[in-house]
Amino acid sequence: MTSPQRKSFGSDNHAGAHPAILSAVLAANAGDATAYGDDPLTEQTVSRLREAFGAAAAFLVFGGTAANVLGLSLLVRPFEAVICAESAHLNENECGATERALGSKLLAVPTPDGKLTPGLMAARLAGRGDAHHAQPRAVEIAQATEVGTCYTLRELQEIREFCDEHDLLLYMDGARLANAAAHLGCTLAELAGHADVLSLGGTKNGALGAEAVIVMNEAHAVAAPYQRMQLMQLASKMRFLAAQFGALLDDGLWLRNASQANRMARRLADGLAGMPGFRLAYPAEANGVFAVLPAAQASRLQQDWNFHVWADLPGGECVARWMTAFDTTEADVDEFIAAIRVTAGHGHPVA
Amino acid sequence: MTSPQRKSFGSDNHAGAHPAILSAVLAANAGDATAYGDDPLTEQTVSRLREAFGAAAAFLVFGGTAANVLGLSLLVRPFEAVICAESAHLNENECGATERALGSKLLAVPTPDGKLTPGLMAARLAGRGDAHHAQPRAVEIAQATEVGTCYTLRELQEIREFCDEHDLLLYMDGARLANAAAHLGCTLAELAGHADVLSLGGTKNGALGAEAVIVMNEAHAVAAPYQRMQLMQLASKMRFLAAQFGALLDDGLWLRNASQANRMARRLADGLAGMPGFRLAYPAEANGVFAVLPAAQASRLQQDWNFHVWADLPGGECVARWMTAFDTTEADVDEFIAAIRVTAGHGHPVA
Amino acid sequence: MTSPQRKSFGSDNHAGAHPAILSAVLAANAGDATAYGDDPLTEQTVSRLREAFGAAAAFLVFGGTAANVLGLSLLVRPFEAVICAESAHLNENECGATERALGSKLLAVPTPDGKLTPGLMAARLAGRGDAHHAQPRAVEIAQATEVGTCYTLRELQEIREFCDEHDLLLYMDGARLANAAAHLGCTLAELAGHADVLSLGGTKNGALGAEAVIVMNEAHAVAAPYQRMQLMQLASKMRFLAAQFGALLDDGLWLRNASQANRMARRLADGLAGMPGFRLAYPAEANGVFAVLPAAQASRLQQDWNFHVWADLPGGECVARWMTAFDTTEADVDEFIAAIRVTAGHGHPVA
Amino acid sequence: MTSPQRKSFGSDNHAGAHPAILSAVLAANAGDATAYGDDPLTEQTVSRLREAFGAAAAFLVFGGTAANVLGLSLLVRPFEAVICAESAHLNENECGATERALGSKLLAVPTPDGKLTPGLMAARLAGRGDAHHAQPRAVEIAQATEVGTCYTLRELQEIREFCDEHDLLLYMDGARLANAAAHLGCTLAELAGHADVLSLGGTKNGALGAEAVIVMNEAHAVAAPYQRMQLMQLASKMRFLAAQFGALLDDGLWLRNASQANRMARRLADGLAGMPGFRLAYPAEANGVFAVLPAAQASRLQQDWNFHVWADLPGGECVARWMTAFDTTEADVDEFIAAIRVTAGHGHPVA
Repeated sequence: MTSPQRKSFGSDNHAGAHPAILSAVLAANAGDATAYGDDPLTEQTVSRLREAFGAAAAFLVFGGTAANVLGLSLLVRPFEAVICAESAHLNENECGATERALGSKLLAVPTPDGKLTPGLMAARLAGRGDAHHAQPRAVEIAQATEVGTCYTLRELQEIREFCDEHDLLLYMDGARLANAAAHLGCTLAELAGHADVLSLGGTKNGALGAEAVIVMNEAHAVAAPYQRMQLMQLASKMRFLAAQFGALLDDGLWLRNASQANRMARRLADGLAGMPGFRLAYPAEANGVFAVLPAAQASRLQQDWNFHVWADLPGGECVARWMTAFDTTEADVDEFIAAIRVTAGHGHPVA
Repeated sequence: MTSPQRKSFGSDNHAGAHPAILSAVLAANAGDATAYGDDPLTEQTVSRLREAFGAAAAFLVFGGTAANVLGLSLLVRPFEAVICAESAHLNENECGATERALGSKLLAVPTPDGKLTPGLMAARLAGRGDAHHAQPRAVEIAQATEVGTCYTLRELQEIREFCDEHDLLLYMDGARLANAAAHLGCTLAELAGHADVLSLGGTKNGALGAEAVIVMNEAHAVAAPYQRMQLMQLASKMRFLAAQFGALLDDGLWLRNASQANRMARRLADGLAGMPGFRLAYPAEANGVFAVLPAAQASRLQQDWNFHVWADLPGGECVARWMTAFDTTEADVDEFIAAIRVTAGHGHPVA
Repeated sequence: MTSPQRKSFGSDNHAGAHPAILSAVLAANAGDATAYGDDPLTEQTVSRLREAFGAAAAFLVFGGTAANVLGLSLLVRPFEAVICAESAHLNENECGATERALGSKLLAVPTPDGKLTPGLMAARLAGRGDAHHAQPRAVEIAQATEVGTCYTLRELQEIREFCDEHDLLLYMDGARLANAAAHLGCTLAELAGHADVLSLGGTKNGALGAEAVIVMNEAHAVAAPYQRMQLMQLASKMRFLAAQFGALLDDGLWLRNASQANRMARRLADGLAGMPGFRLAYPAEANGVFAVLPAAQASRLQQDWNFHVWADLPGGECVARWMTAFDTTEADVDEFIAAIRVTAGHGHPVA
Repeated sequence: MTSPQRKSFGSDNHAGAHPAILSAVLAANAGDATAYGDDPLTEQTVSRLREAFGAAAAFLVFGGTAANVLGLSLLVRPFEAVICAESAHLNENECGATERALGSKLLAVPTPDGKLTPGLMAARLAGRGDAHHAQPRAVEIAQATEVGTCYTLRELQEIREFCDEHDLLLYMDGARLANAAAHLGCTLAELAGHADVLSLGGTKNGALGAEAVIVMNEAHAVAAPYQRMQLMQLASKMRFLAAQFGALLDDGLWLRNASQANRMARRLADGLAGMPGFRLAYPAEANGVFAVLPAAQASRLQQDWNFHVWADLPGGECVARWMTAFDTTEADVDEFIAAIRVTAGHGHPVA
């Protein structure tokens, strides 16, 4: 399924690691270091993360699913439920990890664009105080969302206010938080200020594989070391996770990587504008382009290019998901646009 | 707690990664690769692992606790229990990860040397067929054990036969499997042949952080991809885990690393022989030396050297755990022995 | 909230126990009996249940939520999901018991009438074979449903065929199975023949409190004794649960109780026919009437009568749920109809 | 296995229900009652329980295992562990219900007589603050214990003080709390005053089947309604559980029942005194006699009498468990003593 000669638009996970990340890992390899995070590099990196977010604590973990589960483990008990978008990664793409690890129910809401709103959340608040119902206690949002959209700061503020009014805690899945910050032109702290706990994705931002769970309030952090261990996320050679985040924080690498990916998605979206048979399913605000096109054309494109069909639509159309990464180049995008152009005009949707 | 100038004897996790591992990770970074293991390097590495073990399947995960939990998830249901040594890592050092992820009870047995025997296992078989009792269904052994001992092939054979006679499945925690193979002079397949599922530790063997779950029988492997994902262990950039195991398998690096560590532990144990006030708590068969010494002396040593006190003993003695790694040198050991010698004669145990 | 002078239409759980049930419990009290079901009355009752259902095994438990969880525990593992109607009791009214006890995700589907169909089930089959998705493994249907409708035998047959085609197991929540059998004029075995595991509700059928889990195939029954105990459902004085089911099976009491309740619901539905401002939300096929009426009128009625508002509708209307029980009389229904009539004409919906 | 002609000494669960319990259930059957505990009888009974215990709240559940799990669910999170005696019912006889429902590890300690002491508890406090270890957070004791012994009020006080000093919460398994109160001549409140949460067993005290979870402090009670529902313990026809506790509280029936059972155990123990080959394994302080006798003799006795062999001892001896109930009579005991006398002198232990 890989096509070594052509850039993959299949996932931001298809990219390798940024050279600076690799250099940092190599540098971290010198000498011994106490395991499980009790080493200077980890302490320093965690401290930098805390500062960047204005947070009480930060915990490094292996992957994005784990970050979500660990993050929510700090906010809900088994009889408490999490309101989320139906399209949420933790609802659709994590094999039920949250339900298993936490015992908690997800209260999923269909959304038009991957984004919750106060109105959509309100629809899942029924049954509070009634022992027959799992009790809504936290809200989960992804920033950026799984469909390439971003909450504006105002939208985040409205969600935060809704949470406060209704005694709900807010967890933000930040697997692509850097892309959201790049899109909004805001700081990580500005995003984090709306959440109780959030994640910062390193893997999709150029790391080998590392995510951070950021805890804004000390009270929510007390159990985190134990939860992380019990949830199988305590790295023994922690310095190598720390090194990755250290490199991302150096000279704003996280932001440059995300900005590059976002720009390439924007370039791709712009390049499709006006192409017959095409339209965007969602605005391309982060590093993904979700395009509606004839399914037959998508199939033809997939012969040479690596990407996922996100959804089948009636009438012979589908939604293709095209992701860009920190290392996607203008030439990659332009080659892809050219290929799309070639396949266009064929495979018109069924009338 | 780190002492950069002196080799740590605190854990085989205090070492960094072997240069060949780092080179392999760098080499794996070229170009795009489909995520979640659907890439050529992962396929090739998994194939090599299968071959080395004579196994049906192999699954890469992030850490040792996860390997244990995933491995056991393939063998037991929540009402089924796991017989293990009281000193088992999964019983004592994983914050209850097994109980939480699987819902299963551990039936722990005190052992003289970290090793189960048919007699010890038999003591935990009570209550089979009685719904009030968690049903013993699997046995967990560590090879090498947590206290530096190894099961002989004959002992493994006896345990396997006991399991077969009593309808028990066998999981082998191989966080230090390489050290056991080096000690016994046997192949990985010879060890694996006694187990149903086992792990192969990469991290303590010179990797950055990677473990493998090896499944001997196809029937036990069917659920593994889903269990791995739900248990938060599916790496997106899987090629980087694969690269680490690829390097360990190249030219027997895994064996050279383990052999070096074992030799250094042996050298340390030999160097202590006859030193007054010292004795080995367990035979030094893998890469750890567990030495009984006066607690006051251990404290003094800890001022300059990084290691754990494993247990306090009556009479002012303690058991110190001294671990060696692939990169421990003869000079490191000799320097440590000299330091021990200097502190000896002081801190006699309370009469 | 109870109104002792007037029959409650709030729930079939508001009724007490049928006198024959109480007599059976008293009779069962004579002498000693070995605990946990190892007594002659339990053995005999279980045997009668097996025969009535053509089943391999039957297990008595305390309540309906437990019956659902135990039943599903025999069919799914944590990474396997259960397709169900959004209105399913186990989805909406059991505080997330399934998710917590089993770790499994529920794949809930909106339905027009509480009933799944092959088409609705097919919509939740996405992601099979993909480790990112909880794997659909079982289907849950309630017979009768939570909104007073019943699957016809033909509909059950279609669901069974769909399950067989798609390698799905079928669990039937039979909290009101007797009402469904009474409605359809079929045997319990005819209903059970479509399921792999199902429950038989005693509590809503005139018992003090007892439910049975019926397992059609021996292979699914093997783990049941242990699951029942671990799920906290093994009664020590089991004879008293057995006595209740014994009485229900005697002379078809279960059917007479259910038929009476159904008839009273039918009488109520008929009595409302043509009343201005009223319509049925769902056909009244079992022992519940779900009526659309002006919300203000429902509120007035609730001052004197015990019942739940099932849903608020736009335009000032609501759905009221009126349940009948084995002991609801024609006089009760007629008194209630008269009361409704009195409140009608007031509280017109907002234009 | 039942022997209808002879009183069972197999379990206090082999007895039926006290006539006053049955009368109360019958009386509670009149008319409708709102389900799930929202009825006057339940409210009144819960209020009486609160008063009897000086407690903040009380919750009725179906069985003893459930009471233990619900009780502990109010005190620990999954990474927190429960210190208990190895012989604890929740450790040995509940099929791992605690581990599954709560995800928590049990830290079991061997005891000489079923009773924890500060010294024994201290032995399981290792690893606090270390994320690798499940964190001891609660202590579980049974009062009376599973081997027929009772903690004195002074011993309870010492345990309470130990808990307070070490930031531990105390759960008391009161499946036989009435027997302990009868033995000690103290009130339920005096016992409860040492605990944070405890259970009150109805079933072994003459009920059909009902247990109560008593919560001393309001803060621990907040989650209880949801935990009870999610743990499948919310009875719909709650009035029938309430009726049982109501009857037990009337005129001190709970105390009379327990006192009678205790007296009969004492009479049995006294009757064995001096019988050759016999000795008590534990003092008979509640309603059980644990007697050491030749195993061959125990086998012979079991041909005519229903009881369990608690443990096999070396040298051809065993420990027999003989339980008495509220309805055990002097004649029952005397007949049993006579039977034991007849079998004595045969089956001498191996020299």
